[in-house]
Amino acid sequence: MKKKDMNKQAKIQDAVAAIILAEGPAGVSTTKVAKRVGIAQSNVYLYFKNKQALIDSVYARETTRILSTTDIARLSDATIDLSTRIRGYVQQVYDYSLAHPDSLTIMQQIKALNGQPMTVLPGVADPNNIVVKLLTAAVDAQVIKPLPVSLHMGVVFSTIHTHTTNISQGRYSATQYSFDDIFQLIWDAMKRN
Amino acid sequence: MKKKDMNKQAKIQDAVAAIILAEGPAGVSTTKVAKRVGIAQSNVYLYFKNKQALIDSVYARETTRILSTTDIARLSDATIDLSTRIRGYVQQVYDYSLAHPDSLTIMQQIKALNGQPMTVLPGVADPNNIVVKLLTAAVDAQVIKPLPVSLHMGVVFSTIHTHTTNISQGRYSATQYSFDDIFQLIWDAMKRN
Repeated sequence: MKKKDMNKQAKIQDAVAAIILAEGPAGVSTTKVAKRVGIAQSNVYLYFKNKQALIDSVYARETTRILSTTDIARLSDATIDLSTRIRGYVQQVYDYSLAHPDSLTIMQQIKALNGQPMTVLPGVADPNNIVVKLLTAAVDAQVIKPLPVSLHMGVVFSTIHTHTTNISQGRYSATQYSFDDIFQLIWDAMKRN
Repeated sequence: MKKKDMNKQAKIQDAVAAIILAEGPAGVSTTKVAKRVGIAQSNVYLYFKNKQALIDSVYARETTRILSTTDIARLSDATIDLSTRIRGYVQQVYDYSLAHPDSLTIMQQIKALNGQPMTVLPGVADPNNIVVKLLTAAVDAQVIKPLPVSLHMGVVFSTIHTHTTNISQGRYSATQYSFDDIFQLIWDAMKRN
């Protein structure tokens, strides 16, 4: 059996991400991926069993990348008040999305293919998710509105995704609005009056 | 030359919409559409010149449908205050989306294919757009926050799309949250403090 090469796996994922950005996730095929990477199609199957596995792995990679910039310990530190932790989380998503403007687009496209709104990062249905836990605690403590956590997350992602796409497409410059300007909209939406 | 049949055109658009929901817009092809409708592929070309034209026409149809439920005259009636008009607009999108849960999903998928966030209904870049005009006037009058109109529209669409998808996928019932509950989040996000 051939040995797996993590570098090649990353190149395959890069190719999948590029195809998703150009054509959407439905445009992904093992043939196209192999051609882009310059390897045999059979070689792709060494790493990923099918098209869905390719797409899932790119989604998981983006999720992991965002989470890797997140201070998980801080998000679950009960000695820090809930609104401060939520602000910290939003700032991390914001910073990541500014630095990687395609990241939320890739995730949105994969979610859209599954008919899901852009609110599932990472796994809003998973109660163990650290962000879901934080927002659920904030609902229970009457810090944020008594609405589904997916609506709160939707505002975070929609607003940051629209804003960073506007910047990357040159509609306005990154300095025209501060994080505080953007966060004000998000926090006003979330917070309980 | 064959005569065009508006009924057949609508059937073609229905087929395109069904494919978009199942596979995403990249899955649309004139071959698949012809097969679904039960007509020759050459017949599809009588109505639409290519795949992009098929997708564009479905986007335009959804836009027109939402706008057809909108009281355009009321949205531009300067004797009604801006916040009342914005509330009326949000209510119309809400009612339409509840009645047609797939509609915003189809629009989101088409937009996602183009790498656009779900904030462009109909044509946020078009300054003649009645909704863009209304929101721009509300920014100028300091009724809503001095942020890009696309961010305001993003909150409206993301929140309503997530909410109606949650309902249509059985995550909670339509009676669990009122329009007022949902509008409170949207309006708190938009309004200038």
